[in-house]
Amino acid sequence: MQQPNKTEITNWFKSLQDDICRSLETLDGKATFHQDKWERSEGGGGRSRVIQQGNLLEKGGVNFSAVHGPMPQKILNALKLGDSGNFYATGVSIVLHPNSPLMPIIHMNVRYFEMSTGVWWFGGGIDLTPHYVTPEDATWFHQHLKTVCDNHDAAYYPKFKKWADDYFFIKHRQETRGVGGIFFDRLADNDTHNRQNRFDFVQDVGRAFVPIYTYFAQKYAKQTYTDDHKKWQYIRRSRYVEFNLVYDRGTKFGLDTNGRIESILMSMPPLASWVYNHQPDPSSEEAQTLTYLKKEIDWVNFRQ
Amino acid sequence: MQQPNKTEITNWFKSLQDDICRSLETLDGKATFHQDKWERSEGGGGRSRVIQQGNLLEKGGVNFSAVHGPMPQKILNALKLGDSGNFYATGVSIVLHPNSPLMPIIHMNVRYFEMSTGVWWFGGGIDLTPHYVTPEDATWFHQHLKTVCDNHDAAYYPKFKKWADDYFFIKHRQETRGVGGIFFDRLADNDTHNRQNRFDFVQDVGRAFVPIYTYFAQKYAKQTYTDDHKKWQYIRRSRYVEFNLVYDRGTKFGLDTNGRIESILMSMPPLASWVYNHQPDPSSEEAQTLTYLKKEIDWVNFRQ
Repeated sequence: MQQPNKTEITNWFKSLQDDICRSLETLDGKATFHQDKWERSEGGGGRSRVIQQGNLLEKGGVNFSAVHGPMPQKILNALKLGDSGNFYATGVSIVLHPNSPLMPIIHMNVRYFEMSTGVWWFGGGIDLTPHYVTPEDATWFHQHLKTVCDNHDAAYYPKFKKWADDYFFIKHRQETRGVGGIFFDRLADNDTHNRQNRFDFVQDVGRAFVPIYTYFAQKYAKQTYTDDHKKWQYIRRSRYVEFNLVYDRGTKFGLDTNGRIESILMSMPPLASWVYNHQPDPSSEEAQTLTYLKKEIDWVNFRQ
Repeated sequence: MQQPNKTEITNWFKSLQDDICRSLETLDGKATFHQDKWERSEGGGGRSRVIQQGNLLEKGGVNFSAVHGPMPQKILNALKLGDSGNFYATGVSIVLHPNSPLMPIIHMNVRYFEMSTGVWWFGGGIDLTPHYVTPEDATWFHQHLKTVCDNHDAAYYPKFKKWADDYFFIKHRQETRGVGGIFFDRLADNDTHNRQNRFDFVQDVGRAFVPIYTYFAQKYAKQTYTDDHKKWQYIRRSRYVEFNLVYDRGTKFGLDTNGRIESILMSMPPLASWVYNHQPDPSSEEAQTLTYLKKEIDWVNFRQ
């Protein structure tokens, strides 16, 4: 069977960006995406799209890029990819910061990578960072992801859920970024999967984004919130900043390789706050949320 | 001549923390410092002091610490300090975030380090991050630091000014954090300096902090500012966050070695903002400020 090539994959990622932006504009009802096209001097480029000061979204970025060129020696070594070669990398990356502290921050990324030597793989993930964690929402979210995964391979969800727990972890605070989700990398061909069905899976992950976000918008967008909720949101966002600048591989890679800085940092929150040694009242919703920022919570089967 | 030992140096740093906190409380006139004493399981500890929501200071941290114990192998290697040994490190570190966007952020650090093998050195620096740069203020600040340096060694200021330019640089934005200042490290004994006169210099750097900050408080604290000034301040603070989380060695060292997280991140701003691709009006004060965020401006002899 004919396997999908990089052009088909790239075109599909482009259309995913288009679909998601259109859906988010409809959902928001006020703001629209601003697009910046950019080119990379060594090869390729991207379309960065950002939405700001909407009804629903305080700031959101939906990036598409497809870059290529000679692979730096340092990265060849780090990825154990041999002595030389050209790479091709394409993907869509999203972070949405809502106005309402009752709505979660959401992140999604799908990507494809190949080398001129023939090596290729897919990567990606979705994770949810509620400012206020409720087990009900976390369970719904994980159940949704599990269904997407199970349609392709029963081993996917448990493996990728654990991977997300380990990856989206703020080590210096010993807390997870949010309630996790799924994360996967280097999905290549093996005995049970070829490039086509790896791509099928990645497409389903991409397609899951809009329904998931719509669910939370539907549930929370009209609920009123207080100044105290907003203050807590700013504090939680500062943890998001810490994760992205200290640990996130995509951000580090971008900063190290002189990527387009405004595209790399589109994920940063519009407003974030650091309060010294903030300790919420032990009986508060905020304190409750902190108890849920842990690895290895089995959200699908969670019972309180 | 008897040379100062680590106990004397430590006691002087403690008294410097006391003096600076007292002066800043007087200057602020409203808020007072909250102290957290902490201990390090491997040896030593510190006194973290923070002031929040004052008249003048939105958030400020004045840290003292004196820690000791076996030196991790990784750091021995990095610093080329041999195969094993105990270290002793003490210092004072300050970052102040004012309410008024017309006042600068200021940072000062003085520190002393020694190994059980006999190696020792001083390090430190002061740098200024005005939200709005004016050559007049930058010149005054650098002239002040030059005078402090020149009292000890005519070679200090040019060398340490350049060091600050190189150190306080946000590489991914190709801009300096502010107007620089002085930065120095590994000041040990040599033909012209012994431990006593290195310490004398470091004490003078420490003593320079209050007069410098008083000057800017005096000049700007009563001036009115607008919401637009405040928005710009939040944007500039986000650059401060980027520097501290991505480049600052002290922060990285603290995060890597499981230091007390709230003390390490006391330098983070109370509120910071990331606006996508923010480009100030070319004729604005904000755009003017950006033109000054460059290395190698000779502020002492600056002529417009």
